[in-house]
Amino acid sequence: MRFFSDNAAPVHPAVFAAMAASNTLDTAYDGDAQSRSLDARFSDLFETAVKAFWLPSGTSANSLALAALCPPYGSIVCHRDAHIQNDECGAPEFYTHGAKLLLADGAGAKLTPETIRAVTDAIADDVHRVQPHAVSITNATEYGLVYTPSEVAAIGDLARTKGWSLHMDGARFANAVAHLGCTPADLTWRAGVDVLSFGFIKNGGMSAEALIFFRPELAAGFPERRKRAGLLASKGRYLAAQIIALLDDGLWIENGRAANAGARMLADAAGDRLVHPVEANEVFLRVTPDEAASLRALGFDFYDWAPGEVRLVVAWDRSAADIRPLAEAIAALS
Amino acid sequence: MRFFSDNAAPVHPAVFAAMAASNTLDTAYDGDAQSRSLDARFSDLFETAVKAFWLPSGTSANSLALAALCPPYGSIVCHRDAHIQNDECGAPEFYTHGAKLLLADGAGAKLTPETIRAVTDAIADDVHRVQPHAVSITNATEYGLVYTPSEVAAIGDLARTKGWSLHMDGARFANAVAHLGCTPADLTWRAGVDVLSFGFIKNGGMSAEALIFFRPELAAGFPERRKRAGLLASKGRYLAAQIIALLDDGLWIENGRAANAGARMLADAAGDRLVHPVEANEVFLRVTPDEAASLRALGFDFYDWAPGEVRLVVAWDRSAADIRPLAEAIAALS
Amino acid sequence: MRFFSDNAAPVHPAVFAAMAASNTLDTAYDGDAQSRSLDARFSDLFETAVKAFWLPSGTSANSLALAALCPPYGSIVCHRDAHIQNDECGAPEFYTHGAKLLLADGAGAKLTPETIRAVTDAIADDVHRVQPHAVSITNATEYGLVYTPSEVAAIGDLARTKGWSLHMDGARFANAVAHLGCTPADLTWRAGVDVLSFGFIKNGGMSAEALIFFRPELAAGFPERRKRAGLLASKGRYLAAQIIALLDDGLWIENGRAANAGARMLADAAGDRLVHPVEANEVFLRVTPDEAASLRALGFDFYDWAPGEVRLVVAWDRSAADIRPLAEAIAALS
Amino acid sequence: MRFFSDNAAPVHPAVFAAMAASNTLDTAYDGDAQSRSLDARFSDLFETAVKAFWLPSGTSANSLALAALCPPYGSIVCHRDAHIQNDECGAPEFYTHGAKLLLADGAGAKLTPETIRAVTDAIADDVHRVQPHAVSITNATEYGLVYTPSEVAAIGDLARTKGWSLHMDGARFANAVAHLGCTPADLTWRAGVDVLSFGFIKNGGMSAEALIFFRPELAAGFPERRKRAGLLASKGRYLAAQIIALLDDGLWIENGRAANAGARMLADAAGDRLVHPVEANEVFLRVTPDEAASLRALGFDFYDWAPGEVRLVVAWDRSAADIRPLAEAIAALS
Repeated sequence: MRFFSDNAAPVHPAVFAAMAASNTLDTAYDGDAQSRSLDARFSDLFETAVKAFWLPSGTSANSLALAALCPPYGSIVCHRDAHIQNDECGAPEFYTHGAKLLLADGAGAKLTPETIRAVTDAIADDVHRVQPHAVSITNATEYGLVYTPSEVAAIGDLARTKGWSLHMDGARFANAVAHLGCTPADLTWRAGVDVLSFGFIKNGGMSAEALIFFRPELAAGFPERRKRAGLLASKGRYLAAQIIALLDDGLWIENGRAANAGARMLADAAGDRLVHPVEANEVFLRVTPDEAASLRALGFDFYDWAPGEVRLVVAWDRSAADIRPLAEAIAALS
Repeated sequence: MRFFSDNAAPVHPAVFAAMAASNTLDTAYDGDAQSRSLDARFSDLFETAVKAFWLPSGTSANSLALAALCPPYGSIVCHRDAHIQNDECGAPEFYTHGAKLLLADGAGAKLTPETIRAVTDAIADDVHRVQPHAVSITNATEYGLVYTPSEVAAIGDLARTKGWSLHMDGARFANAVAHLGCTPADLTWRAGVDVLSFGFIKNGGMSAEALIFFRPELAAGFPERRKRAGLLASKGRYLAAQIIALLDDGLWIENGRAANAGARMLADAAGDRLVHPVEANEVFLRVTPDEAASLRALGFDFYDWAPGEVRLVVAWDRSAADIRPLAEAIAALS
Repeated sequence: MRFFSDNAAPVHPAVFAAMAASNTLDTAYDGDAQSRSLDARFSDLFETAVKAFWLPSGTSANSLALAALCPPYGSIVCHRDAHIQNDECGAPEFYTHGAKLLLADGAGAKLTPETIRAVTDAIADDVHRVQPHAVSITNATEYGLVYTPSEVAAIGDLARTKGWSLHMDGARFANAVAHLGCTPADLTWRAGVDVLSFGFIKNGGMSAEALIFFRPELAAGFPERRKRAGLLASKGRYLAAQIIALLDDGLWIENGRAANAGARMLADAAGDRLVHPVEANEVFLRVTPDEAASLRALGFDFYDWAPGEVRLVVAWDRSAADIRPLAEAIAALS
Repeated sequence: MRFFSDNAAPVHPAVFAAMAASNTLDTAYDGDAQSRSLDARFSDLFETAVKAFWLPSGTSANSLALAALCPPYGSIVCHRDAHIQNDECGAPEFYTHGAKLLLADGAGAKLTPETIRAVTDAIADDVHRVQPHAVSITNATEYGLVYTPSEVAAIGDLARTKGWSLHMDGARFANAVAHLGCTPADLTWRAGVDVLSFGFIKNGGMSAEALIFFRPELAAGFPERRKRAGLLASKGRYLAAQIIALLDDGLWIENGRAANAGARMLADAAGDRLVHPVEANEVFLRVTPDEAASLRALGFDFYDWAPGEVRLVVAWDRSAADIRPLAEAIAALS
């Protein structure tokens, strides 16, 4: 039983069905009806007029967001454990043409206005230093914590004061919203978010993420950048279909809830082995190498995060029955 | 009935079935068995050891090929009507970090050693001029013509003499091989091709192209560039599955033959309306605006290529019964 | 006697004297009084408020101008014989992060609205094509011809209509103004020029060119781009001093006139050997290899431009006495 | 009396004289005899065959060095207080096309093998992380400390073991060599340095630095990158002349010694106010705002480095008589 990554999970049957239903002759690129419906679908969801686009990966969504928010000679503040810093092989630098990431601290990979300012206040306002133009936060974070609307808003306020933009990497946005029970609007543009990478692939999709611009003027240049990067799929209708299938009937939030619930079961079993509070679908445990080996001997697979620490990720498709044996095994360790 | 673009065609059922069969928990990115089998599958097909990778688009395949062959301060010779010059919004410039395309002539969008040298011989060998590092040819070409192995080899010989590399944009490689009846090896590495963009999407695939390095050392840096561009799909097994489904039992060449046969039917009906010889699946016709309107009134859809000229593309899924009405309508024009 | 290039000429004594007079302890970078005076000096010269900056080379001035006018995914129309296309090793592509140059025709390396439109009208307004954002003209041109204010204005009008910006490469701006006898304002912003690379190095300077923004808002980001390219000299006062020395008492236009007068002497001697009308300080002659050899045997040095064609450049420091022997030798050829 | 920056110092009279002596008609770019002599001059100085080039700034020298050592998808380890990180507006990212700087610690801005490994050992060797390709050290450092040959060699050994290259930013290389009394060879290639930015501008030059490749094959591509960045001065002989004037009779090391001696006088006066040991020409002092004000009231100018800390830089031209009043004023503070 694999708890390695939500990227390893299968595609939701409804997503497959939607792709199959789209398998007819249609217009190429993003000229099909489904692609053209995305603005409206996401404007509904977010209760405001947005520009929404599909992209084939979270990395490309994040990078094109940052390219829209930061010139080549600027910088973007992010957490030092952020995906954009550590897991994208320099994609932000590629897409922004060499902007710099400024690394800030914060428990559980969460930034705060204070940790952001600890980095930016030290930067003299002159041409020799790379000046900040944007902040990027991840919700849920790389450690499975969730920014609340008011925590986002505190950062949004700082950004607005400073003249910076705010990006949210929502590879696990569904898990964050599911945890909070808030509206998508409250967690994003009402809290100052300008652009959201809205993840679907980890949450039952196959190859489609969405990029949401809450200030439509920021999308100027996006279509060209997407095309120029080879990201404008020639059969884009299959990407749009995936997203729409997950939006329909709130399947996206249902999947997020399911994954969170599984992680909760593991967290409850883990007690004080937890490295971080469990708010989304990731569980970080303190285990000895022998304990890790004993879990693996039982057939459970997971990622060695750091010495004495492992990461378990629960995907949308894990039932309580799937998870119970692992929860029991963890409880039995102590 | 649409004859607009092979990008508008549906996905082959076998490709869908292969994706569905892959819809289980598996390893993320390209660590799955199918992705790892691509080197072997393409080495078999090409009768030599190759490095093979999936990519989500032809534009990204072409651009990453060029980035492997040309430094930022170099240039690439291509036809002035090449897709990389006219239809990719500057993707080669983005991926190569600013290399220049040198535009050469040739009937039917085919380069020859002579047309290449007409451009490159004029370039002084000094630091002020951007020096050529590679040639890129498209087979079948943008006008549906096919380079023979010996025509490719003539360009390959020139490239080797000059120290340049040779890329083939094979978005319609299947149509070219189907037309020629040669082996894939004869049309590529045996004729001096270093890297091939092997197209599957126009030929029954959904979202997977392959990039084939015939000199494995050229693939150094490719994995990083693919990741850094957000092109390393987190659920890569679905891309690999598409390619493998099309390789199995020669489905790729069968689809190419089918599309070519349909174009042949149209060509035979068109007589001296043909702008170019029809060798692959594209048909360019001289028609007046009234004639074009009359065809459209019959329910046929196609692209206005130039004043007095339209383009018809036949996809893999068009049966003789689908095409006959259009052929008859064309024949009836005169 | 060398007539090879105006880059080979010495530095004007007044420029040297100005650098020597600046050789005291002062503020680094461009914080010194001379650098800070450039806006005012050029605003006076151009009779409008401009932003003006020094740069160490014409290539960097041109490239930073283009980076200010064109996004990475855009294109710039220039003559196919333009310096930015053929003599800068891809600097525009480097500084713009991969914009494309669109090559247009025109006698004597001069663009016209018609030759520009011959290129741009063929570009479909979609995301697949690289869209034009700017035009760049060279005055005096690479062949020593001069655009008049009305010729520039015709291009400026087209640019404004299309929403493009207009750059003038004025590496030999002094020669153009000297030929026309117009004001600098008439030849630039009054005719629609947005940014001017104002050359001083070929005209008696050592290592300083000026970049002039006629719409100050276009200079946003310029200081960062200049710094980031390593072009913000730490002892910038010596660059500013050169420019100011050439502006003082109109030395720049005096030098331009002197060079033009020398070229005129050669042109008058050359008769129908002239390939192009001589309007600035460059003379292109039709000579046989034997004739070229005979001139060289007399001690004259020059550049072989093309088969049967040589280029002679007259620098600011060539006196009539210097030039007369060459004029006589040319006249004696026939 | 300014102790603000060695960039604010004047140009050495011998350097001016050399430029004046070069003020004749000569070959453009780097075709002149002086430019062509640089390989030989620096090969002599470094006792090995090197490739040496002039550049107009330290930032461009550093950046072109890094571009030669690191691909766009790689990273370079440097100190978190390094000039390339904090004072060049992202020039390394611009020239490398988006490589990442990895920031390591170390007292006095000096890296050690241990502080480097503390950063790099945490980087998994996979395609998601940006892999290190080079280390860049600054000698003398941003805080005026000097790496000894054995300290450099320890880093050089680590680099060789890991397959990384080693760059030395020698903006104050003269001060480092003057302090150590070693040979330039011992401090560079014999200790594993692959490329050196050899500073002249802070040390009596005007606008010329040198970039020295100790492994000539690393210089492949450098001429094109220099040209493409607009850094190939059209009148390069004046840059070469500056460097040669400073190399002649060891003027460079004499100037370095003079500056160091001045800093030593200040250090001796400062006692336990010193923030860092004084080994080169920079002095960092702990002073209260009142003390700083009192020094400034006496006519001394300097840089506020941090709260309670100021930086004094002694340039090559400060005599003991110039410095004594400041030394006495500092001593009198306590």
